[in-house]
Amino acid sequence: MSETGKRLEALGIELPVRDRKGKGVVDASIVGDVMYLSAQLPVDENGQPVYVGKVGADLDLDTAYKAARLCGLNALAVLKDYVGELDRVDHVIKVLGLVNSAGDFSSQPAVINGFSDLMVEVFGYRGQHARSAMGAYALPMNVPVVVEMIVKLR
Amino acid sequence: MSETGKRLEALGIELPVRDRKGKGVVDASIVGDVMYLSAQLPVDENGQPVYVGKVGADLDLDTAYKAARLCGLNALAVLKDYVGELDRVDHVIKVLGLVNSAGDFSSQPAVINGFSDLMVEVFGYRGQHARSAMGAYALPMNVPVVVEMIVKLR
Amino acid sequence: MSETGKRLEALGIELPVRDRKGKGVVDASIVGDVMYLSAQLPVDENGQPVYVGKVGADLDLDTAYKAARLCGLNALAVLKDYVGELDRVDHVIKVLGLVNSAGDFSSQPAVINGFSDLMVEVFGYRGQHARSAMGAYALPMNVPVVVEMIVKLR
Repeated sequence: MSETGKRLEALGIELPVRDRKGKGVVDASIVGDVMYLSAQLPVDENGQPVYVGKVGADLDLDTAYKAARLCGLNALAVLKDYVGELDRVDHVIKVLGLVNSAGDFSSQPAVINGFSDLMVEVFGYRGQHARSAMGAYALPMNVPVVVEMIVKLR
Repeated sequence: MSETGKRLEALGIELPVRDRKGKGVVDASIVGDVMYLSAQLPVDENGQPVYVGKVGADLDLDTAYKAARLCGLNALAVLKDYVGELDRVDHVIKVLGLVNSAGDFSSQPAVINGFSDLMVEVFGYRGQHARSAMGAYALPMNVPVVVEMIVKLR
Repeated sequence: MSETGKRLEALGIELPVRDRKGKGVVDASIVGDVMYLSAQLPVDENGQPVYVGKVGADLDLDTAYKAARLCGLNALAVLKDYVGELDRVDHVIKVLGLVNSAGDFSSQPAVINGFSDLMVEVFGYRGQHARSAMGAYALPMNVPVVVEMIVKLR
């Protein structure tokens, strides 16, 4: 088992199983040693939303944090699907997180920490990244959060 | 005529004529063999919006799909303007689409398919890309959709 | 003093002093000679917002332009912090600006010009960039604008 695989096991993290979409939109795109991941949603392995609603109205911060963490698990599953072993990730470059926000909710960074914290748990300092966290007015399937990521491979 | 030029002709697609802006903001920026396009709007060759309003309130999904396709045509026009021949596009890397959404509209991906489908029509499998589709609260000139793109050149 | 340093002085621009965050999220991430900056907010050197509210309701365009310029100053401070001398910036690649917008505000590009104009003032034609400017429904700490940037180093 790879080093990152062992760490996932120690953390009790089991990645969802996924199928690639194979249409115009794909889960990830690689140019040189940089991989762009499509926006990840807090969905189960059938693509059904596990969390729905607007943060600050339908969901509280703690629940939204968990939704962002699920986006992160799905991102890791995509990575594993494309590169075989998570050890091939050199480091996380950039994260963009969008939070389906109530009008007066302004703690988007605290939500996206659910994603960012997972990357540091799994990759250590290599999981650190530049980030933008913003409030969206509406998101696909009314999920509370979507997160996209750019990583460097090795 | 280039291979992609022939395909455009076969598809009956005529690209709009455009002028570069030549100010602080330019239509595209190249680093190495990666080109970043500025957000494309559903505007005519004079920069006037062809579509306006919020999707799910002022426009329906089908109309918004067409607006996203027009963003794609404008993106192809920028590409052609910068690199001369669309054959120089190795592949589409990443697309970010923002949909000016009514509060209860959550089919942003179906709108941005208007852009993504065009890329696959024109470039085939090289048009496949990672993507994020989100709902914006407001967009420049109240257009229903804007799309930005990153492509790899060869 | 470096060439860019002299230009900053001639422009009467003094950059804020900043500390790196050193957590999961960092201010910037470098891959090859490309640097991704985290979203910059219109905050003072203690991270407190200098501007708050929605553009078109709580703030007018001129004030929002100034807020975007402050995002730009903070971006320059991050750049300087990471690479030592701003002369090491080869050119600005891409800017994404989000404006905390009232529902009927649609001049997001005019706001983000506060950021873009600064880059051209400081870097000249090397400050020109591809850009997307969009309306967000909510932003961290209810700031009126956040801007992220990608630059090429040399």
